[in-house]
Amino acid sequence: MWIRLKAVLVIADGMADRPVKKLDWKTPLEAARKPLLNHIAKTGICGIMDPISPGLPPGSDTATLALLGYDALKVYSGRGAFEAIGSGVDVLFGDVAFRCNFATVDNNLVVLDRRAGRISNEDASRLAKSLQKIKLKTSSNAEFILKNTIQHRAALVIRGPKLSTAVSDSDPEKVREKVSEIKPLDENPEAKLTAEILKELMQKFREVLKQHPVNKERIKRDLPPANIILCRGAGTIPKVKSLAEKYGITATCIAAAPLIRGVCIVAGMKLIDVKGATGTPQTDFMAKAKATVQALKTNDFVLLHVKATDVASHDGNIKQKIKLIEKIDKMLGYVLNNIDLDATYLAVTADHTTSSITKNHEGDPVPLAITGPYVRCDDVEEYDERTCAKGGLNRIKGMDLMPILMNLIGKTKMFGA
Amino acid sequence: MWIRLKAVLVIADGMADRPVKKLDWKTPLEAARKPLLNHIAKTGICGIMDPISPGLPPGSDTATLALLGYDALKVYSGRGAFEAIGSGVDVLFGDVAFRCNFATVDNNLVVLDRRAGRISNEDASRLAKSLQKIKLKTSSNAEFILKNTIQHRAALVIRGPKLSTAVSDSDPEKVREKVSEIKPLDENPEAKLTAEILKELMQKFREVLKQHPVNKERIKRDLPPANIILCRGAGTIPKVKSLAEKYGITATCIAAAPLIRGVCIVAGMKLIDVKGATGTPQTDFMAKAKATVQALKTNDFVLLHVKATDVASHDGNIKQKIKLIEKIDKMLGYVLNNIDLDATYLAVTADHTTSSITKNHEGDPVPLAITGPYVRCDDVEEYDERTCAKGGLNRIKGMDLMPILMNLIGKTKMFGA
Repeated sequence: MWIRLKAVLVIADGMADRPVKKLDWKTPLEAARKPLLNHIAKTGICGIMDPISPGLPPGSDTATLALLGYDALKVYSGRGAFEAIGSGVDVLFGDVAFRCNFATVDNNLVVLDRRAGRISNEDASRLAKSLQKIKLKTSSNAEFILKNTIQHRAALVIRGPKLSTAVSDSDPEKVREKVSEIKPLDENPEAKLTAEILKELMQKFREVLKQHPVNKERIKRDLPPANIILCRGAGTIPKVKSLAEKYGITATCIAAAPLIRGVCIVAGMKLIDVKGATGTPQTDFMAKAKATVQALKTNDFVLLHVKATDVASHDGNIKQKIKLIEKIDKMLGYVLNNIDLDATYLAVTADHTTSSITKNHEGDPVPLAITGPYVRCDDVEEYDERTCAKGGLNRIKGMDLMPILMNLIGKTKMFGA
Repeated sequence: MWIRLKAVLVIADGMADRPVKKLDWKTPLEAARKPLLNHIAKTGICGIMDPISPGLPPGSDTATLALLGYDALKVYSGRGAFEAIGSGVDVLFGDVAFRCNFATVDNNLVVLDRRAGRISNEDASRLAKSLQKIKLKTSSNAEFILKNTIQHRAALVIRGPKLSTAVSDSDPEKVREKVSEIKPLDENPEAKLTAEILKELMQKFREVLKQHPVNKERIKRDLPPANIILCRGAGTIPKVKSLAEKYGITATCIAAAPLIRGVCIVAGMKLIDVKGATGTPQTDFMAKAKATVQALKTNDFVLLHVKATDVASHDGNIKQKIKLIEKIDKMLGYVLNNIDLDATYLAVTADHTTSSITKNHEGDPVPLAITGPYVRCDDVEEYDERTCAKGGLNRIKGMDLMPILMNLIGKTKMFGA
């Protein structure tokens, strides 16, 4: 009987770490109670993986691109477009997208609050609606979409015949600094035009926001007015082959973080919205596990992404990171108990190391374990950064993982004859 | 409190070797007493490293380029320029530089002694002064610099508007062979012009040397006359970003060998001259150790290079190689005892394998150990070619080392967001 093989890739964002003095020089993974992760290591083949290349700290966008089998160093084209498309904005090839904040400035354009007091979704939504009515000068032949996403966050997309991502940010990314002037970053007319359109938009946004009833109300309520839009991270959608084109598979993504959702959309994956999945440490792990099991019934490949571990690392909250790893462990238990282990490969990894000490993404490799019916199981019995380094996979690159998984489920084509 | 992290890279030239029958099939590293090297392995993370790529024997120039983080396969442009610049000759972009020997030929231009009896610095210096007075035909619009370095060695630099490195050597690199004819190596007019200038120079050098008083004296004293200049290894300075541009670091090199000094100058590093450091087995190891500790006080990165182990390997002197490794071990002891181990990463490696049996550079990987506050220490307890292969770094490439070190000291930029 022919069996349809399937693969699940679990990515715990920033789960890998460096040894921590407080943990007797263990890493959070080494310190956590994680019987299921260990079971996966024990029944599988393990290794370490450089998401992009040794020593290079990846962003979650470039790392996820790599783990989906793309050469991020070649195809990456800025964060803005992933974030926008992942937030539900329709981004087309050639559009230039930005990540935006509703923020508070004084009359000299000095930033007082980069998040306008973490403005509510309701207020931001009313402001965005007014801003969307603005008309650009017809000479530029361009249009724009502004969409508020969560709280102060928003996505801006500029659409026009000849645009460029070579424009600087207006967001100084610090309070008490003046809003940065938007400039073209190269000599091409496209960069000049895009900078002009962006400047025009930012100015018109500012005019509307300054006297908007929502802000007048906010001032009355003693809340910081959202009297400017700050933008950063110009990006376009990279032209890549979808996973369906590359491997002939159906692929689905279970992720809450807009950035990861954006990358998966670009890879041609379906998205599943899971109730209670929030991209925060309070996310509903079991709901994600159930959605994964469900998605696997109709897909060849499911990516299950958990953002929480990265959030804890950026906060330097080691205790929370360990607890979250233990929750991920339980989540994996549900997955393992509810899939056909004779026909499914399960890989668990992190998209990058995030140090709980430096609170930054770091360039150290991440652990990887792949279990499934025909892997060359090695003698690694624990899932962590150091033990996995002794495994049968040795040290691979992030973009090698997808071909390995696709080969295990019989979806790679022979090169040569 | 914010701590400024620093890194030291120790390169023992050609220290890695193959198993030797005389040593009961141990390598010289395995046979040596090296408690400090072992201590570094024990407290650090270990691995093996292919300086360029597996099986490819690197030169010390290409290997050092790689260990400084450059893609040697892309940027390498011949040995001549590194050697010249490292000998104190001012080489500019576009100059073509050659390694030269003062040599002895008979009347039929057959080489009798490639080193003119290892001519003294004094004699070579007097000859070089006369040769520098030669005028090139004005039609070529070119100039030259000839500088004698140590004994029979010299550097030649040709400067002109349109030159090429695509010219053949005149040095046959063997005695009893005729001096080779200089030819352009491609069809470009630049190669033709450079070959013509070089031919003209070689001929004019020969004429001056043939009747030079220094050589008449040498013949009287029964010494071989330095009656010809042999040239080889046409090279230009590669255009690379300095380490300061790449990583925002201050970087210093402690090396005596001109070739290594040249590579470090090209990488924008400062050079420190250490009294007693000679680039030979008689070098003053402790003086180098002290200079390293001193340099580390004002630099983010210090490269400490020791040439001696390579010299012993090329001589096939296994006993001496072991003794030199033991001296390097003591040198490392001084460094370890005098740096702030809570804020410094120390990496020890070789630039390539040099076999004491073949007496050649070989393509086997080299051992690597990195110790420092937050490395993922593995269970390797000895520093040698085979034990390090079991370490947590697994197998990396030479050009990955610098990003790894720079990441550890917080000097890499995130790729993506």
